[in-house]
Amino acid sequence: MYKVDINCDMGESFGLYNFGYDEEMMKYISSANIACGFHAGDPQIMRETVQLAKENGVTIGAHPSFPDLLGFGRREMNCTDTEIKDYITYQIGALREFSRLSGLEIQHCKPHGSLYVMAMEDEKLAKAILEAIATIDENMIVFALNHSAVSYLGNKMGMRIALEAFADRDHTTTGGIVPLRKGQKIDDYQALADRAVRMVKEKMVRADTGEDAEIIAQTICIHGDTPGASELAKWMSEEMKKNDIEVTSINNIV
Amino acid sequence: MYKVDINCDMGESFGLYNFGYDEEMMKYISSANIACGFHAGDPQIMRETVQLAKENGVTIGAHPSFPDLLGFGRREMNCTDTEIKDYITYQIGALREFSRLSGLEIQHCKPHGSLYVMAMEDEKLAKAILEAIATIDENMIVFALNHSAVSYLGNKMGMRIALEAFADRDHTTTGGIVPLRKGQKIDDYQALADRAVRMVKEKMVRADTGEDAEIIAQTICIHGDTPGASELAKWMSEEMKKNDIEVTSINNIV
Amino acid sequence: MYKVDINCDMGESFGLYNFGYDEEMMKYISSANIACGFHAGDPQIMRETVQLAKENGVTIGAHPSFPDLLGFGRREMNCTDTEIKDYITYQIGALREFSRLSGLEIQHCKPHGSLYVMAMEDEKLAKAILEAIATIDENMIVFALNHSAVSYLGNKMGMRIALEAFADRDHTTTGGIVPLRKGQKIDDYQALADRAVRMVKEKMVRADTGEDAEIIAQTICIHGDTPGASELAKWMSEEMKKNDIEVTSINNIV
Amino acid sequence: MYKVDINCDMGESFGLYNFGYDEEMMKYISSANIACGFHAGDPQIMRETVQLAKENGVTIGAHPSFPDLLGFGRREMNCTDTEIKDYITYQIGALREFSRLSGLEIQHCKPHGSLYVMAMEDEKLAKAILEAIATIDENMIVFALNHSAVSYLGNKMGMRIALEAFADRDHTTTGGIVPLRKGQKIDDYQALADRAVRMVKEKMVRADTGEDAEIIAQTICIHGDTPGASELAKWMSEEMKKNDIEVTSINNIV
Repeated sequence: MYKVDINCDMGESFGLYNFGYDEEMMKYISSANIACGFHAGDPQIMRETVQLAKENGVTIGAHPSFPDLLGFGRREMNCTDTEIKDYITYQIGALREFSRLSGLEIQHCKPHGSLYVMAMEDEKLAKAILEAIATIDENMIVFALNHSAVSYLGNKMGMRIALEAFADRDHTTTGGIVPLRKGQKIDDYQALADRAVRMVKEKMVRADTGEDAEIIAQTICIHGDTPGASELAKWMSEEMKKNDIEVTSINNIV
Repeated sequence: MYKVDINCDMGESFGLYNFGYDEEMMKYISSANIACGFHAGDPQIMRETVQLAKENGVTIGAHPSFPDLLGFGRREMNCTDTEIKDYITYQIGALREFSRLSGLEIQHCKPHGSLYVMAMEDEKLAKAILEAIATIDENMIVFALNHSAVSYLGNKMGMRIALEAFADRDHTTTGGIVPLRKGQKIDDYQALADRAVRMVKEKMVRADTGEDAEIIAQTICIHGDTPGASELAKWMSEEMKKNDIEVTSINNIV
Repeated sequence: MYKVDINCDMGESFGLYNFGYDEEMMKYISSANIACGFHAGDPQIMRETVQLAKENGVTIGAHPSFPDLLGFGRREMNCTDTEIKDYITYQIGALREFSRLSGLEIQHCKPHGSLYVMAMEDEKLAKAILEAIATIDENMIVFALNHSAVSYLGNKMGMRIALEAFADRDHTTTGGIVPLRKGQKIDDYQALADRAVRMVKEKMVRADTGEDAEIIAQTICIHGDTPGASELAKWMSEEMKKNDIEVTSINNIV
Repeated sequence: MYKVDINCDMGESFGLYNFGYDEEMMKYISSANIACGFHAGDPQIMRETVQLAKENGVTIGAHPSFPDLLGFGRREMNCTDTEIKDYITYQIGALREFSRLSGLEIQHCKPHGSLYVMAMEDEKLAKAILEAIATIDENMIVFALNHSAVSYLGNKMGMRIALEAFADRDHTTTGGIVPLRKGQKIDDYQALADRAVRMVKEKMVRADTGEDAEIIAQTICIHGDTPGASELAKWMSEEMKKNDIEVTSINNIV
């Protein structure tokens, strides 16, 4: 039987501002990447999101970011390795305290937004992120694209790397993600689910070039702000079952 | 032989901004209250301050605040109990991660600025703070004024309370602190040290009314931004020795 | 013919976070209170909101706040008079620059959230706010509750004060506002509109005590985050017309 | 007779944090670049700094930055053109309000830190900055390096560009600035002053390559956090006088 983890960014509200459909999404995912206050999230939301994950039997991970609330962590910033390590330590630490309150442990870390995208190609940044995480907990799983600086280096360091694909984005032939084109529709849930199922069972994906390419999808991300995200998550979850793919937390997989 | 803890707020720089004389002060104190990023401090400074405390054999504590960087946590804010608990959890969690990196444990918690002052008289706020700390670590020591809401309630809850006096402030007859009067000098180190020694040995202080009043000084605070703070700390430290008072971490006292 | 201004807080989104139904509300109001970045709003949103007001022929005002993004400016803060004045100057200045870009002038100032509520009863705070505004522009209209510190002092200073009532809140017998009770419904648009019409035409309101009380409603606020706010605004606007009340910018009234 | 403007970044304190030696520096400079709250500065400090400039007869300019208080605006950020324009508008607007209070006008704009450095080589960013400034005030002078994207494009747009050199940094052969090497001393005031005088009178500088290179120095910057900055400013000011160079505000020069 096949296995896959489905992950989603969670706890990205802030103060009075709501973002995403956390309650709905939690029903269908197996891993929640929880914002830690640098790009989104605040102490109250972190506590509530950890608790919500617990109630839904969802495994939690940290979702640290550049310090950029105004830009939602989606803008490239040029930080030093030391700054990156300290930012990750601070954010994971804050989340660990809330996890402890709910009796949960942080299983994984998925850097957010530009920090994630940059680290996939920038070895120096990848190294800083991996070292920070390894120092905190050598068993913590790190999410990374296929053929990325994070996956290569993480494997070399003996860390647990979860290879990630995206439900609602196209991929390059080497497993990279392709930003949404203007006006691109991502509402054909059947097609998105079929693609995901194929990635898991055949380890293949039709890439943005039109070619078939190899890909390993140990965890599949659904963006929480994709229109109809929870519909997609539900659909995805059901299609996985129909195809004998168990949706389970990433720490049962890597 | 008598014992007393000398504490000081530490790690209150931010980014490029320097504040206080941490390196000098660390030589003479036994407990460091480390800012956690809400009124001062940032991830890099937190890491460095924890490490500096370790190198000086100084025990560390958390110094959580209202979220008010612009006002340095010195302005009263009207937060809900839930917000207060979540803010404290977040800040202690972040500091715990850096403590772990240095192999240290957080021994105590001293709320910062207005949060400290308000909690001493506001039972509801005192309760929120104490419950947050007790949930995180029931052995964590909480700093509180004599005859304060925090000390009464903390004792009732069975928590470890450290009664605090101030080296560079006058006290009321019930152990409260008196804000500096405009132009008030606090540079007579001998007088300040004599007062501190008396508080420890005789459990008495000449209050702001001119009367002698009872006070218990288990830990004595020196403000890091008092002019000549490190001079005062050195002087205080030496006077304690001369008077057979051991300066030692608060967890050897309460 | 009667006249009344209908105002609403606008531009309270932040970064990726959406708040309120600005595009819908703009169709029915005559004055927009625009957030200036301290409790909500950011530079991009300020520019867009000013422009949106212009396109809808809506007069604009500044909506300055305590510096508290996390608490949306709804928490009491204890700032000095000097801080208050400087915060208001900064925020109005930033908004003025965007107004200039759109060829508009700031007509009024309505302090936001706790700053508004506190100033109505606190003479010292009211004075700081009024002096800050008068220094910037002596013709700028200030929104204030009936029988408030701001209205009394503003009148005494010779400033243009707009007496404000609220469409979706109960009032005290002296024109104060009553916070929503838990579970209180505010979806009977006809009843809310009838009350508003009566306030304008008869200068009377059924107060929270059940008694009729005098009130002057030169401008009526609709909260943008009231459920169905734009429905209410539309209803209100139509009922005003039916009752021969002209909805017009406050600078045609005071 | 020769003329030159001497400029310095000012008002870069924040809350309780002090930065720079503004009171000393103001005595010797002719243009103050005032921080606007995004990398440093706050409303109170902005008001005080404008007033301090006025008292010293120093002309003021805006010193806008990326929104990065933690990094003091010294980290590259990847913002959109629209964001840049809105950030500049917001910051200049806030400063204009304080300028008005003191009866001063903003004469120039010098982007801060990474925004300055990036704009000198990035035409798209230079264009965004220049368009934002031109829209606000077509007479506002913009500081730029020799042979930079900002100077070329600004001239093409018919804007008033002030060519800038640095008192305490080496220059490339094309007028660029060379970051301080680790351990590099900048305390030979006579040598620094001689270099500055030569830049003004001969329009030549010994570049980092050892070659002599042409340079136009209409305004010379002294970094406020250079050790002994005010000593250097005084020395520079006196050497200029000795060499028949009038130190005067940039709006008497370009």
